[in-house]
Amino acid sequence: MINRKLLLKKRPIGLPDEDTWELIDEKLPDLVEGEILIEQQYISLDPAMRGWMNDSRSYIKPIEIGDVMRAGSVGKVIKKSGKNKFNLGEYVTGWGGVQTHCISNGENLYRVDPTKSNLSTYLGVLGMPGMTAYFGILEEAKVKAGDVVLVSGAAGAVGSLVGQIAKIKGCKVVGIAGGEKKCKFIKDDLGFDDSIDYKNGNVIKEIKNKCPNGIDVYFDNVGGEILDAALIFLRRNARVILCGAISQYNNRDSIKGPKNYLSLLVNRASIKGMVVFDYAPKYEKAIDEISGWIEDGKILINEDIYEGIDNFRSIFLKLFNGNKMGKLILKVKT
Amino acid sequence: MINRKLLLKKRPIGLPDEDTWELIDEKLPDLVEGEILIEQQYISLDPAMRGWMNDSRSYIKPIEIGDVMRAGSVGKVIKKSGKNKFNLGEYVTGWGGVQTHCISNGENLYRVDPTKSNLSTYLGVLGMPGMTAYFGILEEAKVKAGDVVLVSGAAGAVGSLVGQIAKIKGCKVVGIAGGEKKCKFIKDDLGFDDSIDYKNGNVIKEIKNKCPNGIDVYFDNVGGEILDAALIFLRRNARVILCGAISQYNNRDSIKGPKNYLSLLVNRASIKGMVVFDYAPKYEKAIDEISGWIEDGKILINEDIYEGIDNFRSIFLKLFNGNKMGKLILKVKT
Repeated sequence: MINRKLLLKKRPIGLPDEDTWELIDEKLPDLVEGEILIEQQYISLDPAMRGWMNDSRSYIKPIEIGDVMRAGSVGKVIKKSGKNKFNLGEYVTGWGGVQTHCISNGENLYRVDPTKSNLSTYLGVLGMPGMTAYFGILEEAKVKAGDVVLVSGAAGAVGSLVGQIAKIKGCKVVGIAGGEKKCKFIKDDLGFDDSIDYKNGNVIKEIKNKCPNGIDVYFDNVGGEILDAALIFLRRNARVILCGAISQYNNRDSIKGPKNYLSLLVNRASIKGMVVFDYAPKYEKAIDEISGWIEDGKILINEDIYEGIDNFRSIFLKLFNGNKMGKLILKVKT
Repeated sequence: MINRKLLLKKRPIGLPDEDTWELIDEKLPDLVEGEILIEQQYISLDPAMRGWMNDSRSYIKPIEIGDVMRAGSVGKVIKKSGKNKFNLGEYVTGWGGVQTHCISNGENLYRVDPTKSNLSTYLGVLGMPGMTAYFGILEEAKVKAGDVVLVSGAAGAVGSLVGQIAKIKGCKVVGIAGGEKKCKFIKDDLGFDDSIDYKNGNVIKEIKNKCPNGIDVYFDNVGGEILDAALIFLRRNARVILCGAISQYNNRDSIKGPKNYLSLLVNRASIKGMVVFDYAPKYEKAIDEISGWIEDGKILINEDIYEGIDNFRSIFLKLFNGNKMGKLILKVKT
């Protein structure tokens, strides 16, 4: 059986280009005792993947040159050799990488139930972005009813859930997104109180307009000028949750620091970084609660699915060019 | 009786110059019922005063053009009209401003005891800088034994006390200061474990050298490049306490944001701003504890006192040109 896999060939400077990856076909080796073969169904595309491609100290090891491009995935067990906790026909999620098949001993894999949710959802609101939003807004930001919450990347995988959970908790939620379509979506479909189109108009003026009494929580997925704008409007004891900085990931030189950071001092506010992996022991509880919200119609699933591993690069670039809505997912089989 | 007072004449851009203030002599008005007249002894000079001169939203109202330059002070009650909780001959501390005399109804004044400490000390380790250091390192940073604490402005009023308190609490303390003399002082006299001379050598290399396992707490009085260097070495769950940014207060254009702020994300760390006034209800307890440490020889008082209100500007500039050691104080009577 043939595995088609995407290898990291060269560390990109700026945006990944034609030389960054190499797609190769390889005959799968025979399974050894205790292994399973997984036929991948969906592969997760996340902004954080760009960071893993750099050779720098981070919360996770860099992807090595020549390795399969790291990615979360969900797939089906189609072969098994000897004993393994997973059975043929079961579905699992884990770090399958960007390839059509993967072989595993079962470590760091989790069973998922395709009758409860679409498989892709285990990469979205029930996967890493979902966990990030859930623990970020509840345990890091500690939102409470009445808080004014500003979210950037608001139509994205994490941001769209952050806002929806904050609404469930009784906050006033304003989302920042790029373009009229996304802004309409987060208001009309996701139920945010208001939206700010950063591609159309002055973000500072818009925040002032839409959060006239300032903000209690800013959930930052983007960094750069939007972070700087948000800092101006912090209220006393405001919390800035640092989840990502997508505007800075492909910089060719050093990233832009928030020049308005002294607003933290004046307002006794904080910026706090988070990494979702720290919450792994609590994922199950979060998945239960989010599933309940989905059933009750309180959470709208927001996924953008594209087909074909051969198109990986152009789909991956959608993370950074704004040309997608919600959680970006690659469907493996076309 | 004549009061000599310093008025804010023009908001400075960058460092204050000859046109910033005006020194005038004025006949003191008669006291009205309930007022006291204070003959000022010592006036406090603090970096924060530079911020109060800007016309911008902050934790305290800007000083208005034409007003007496705001400053903390300590003085003696030399006249009284009718009833007031303070008596003739008593010493008080409060916001006396940069002038030889001030009139008050007693509000926001606190009695101090010249037999317990030198009067100037009520502007230093028992005053605002002392409170800032105490609550900053204990309640904001929540240091515990074994923490590696890095302090900038380490020979200054706040920094020198931050480091000494952290030592009392069993931390490893490294101080950053400018010049050999200051660096020797913080090691030999204040008992810090090590020092880094930012004027001599590469701060990044020096931090790496002297904190080989990274830092748990960075207490920031300076901002700019030193803040950026410190961010590189944050350990998991590190706390950056934002107390000031003296390197940025006299910028002629926008301040420099910390470009390494994504270290907060990777290391699940935080930057938190503080304003000492929030701790006012607890000042008394802090003064008691610090006084005890002074008596026990655990805290060295570190003051730099200059004479004469006529020399205010040149003394004030010492806050920013590094040409002083410890708490900067103006003695009013020459």
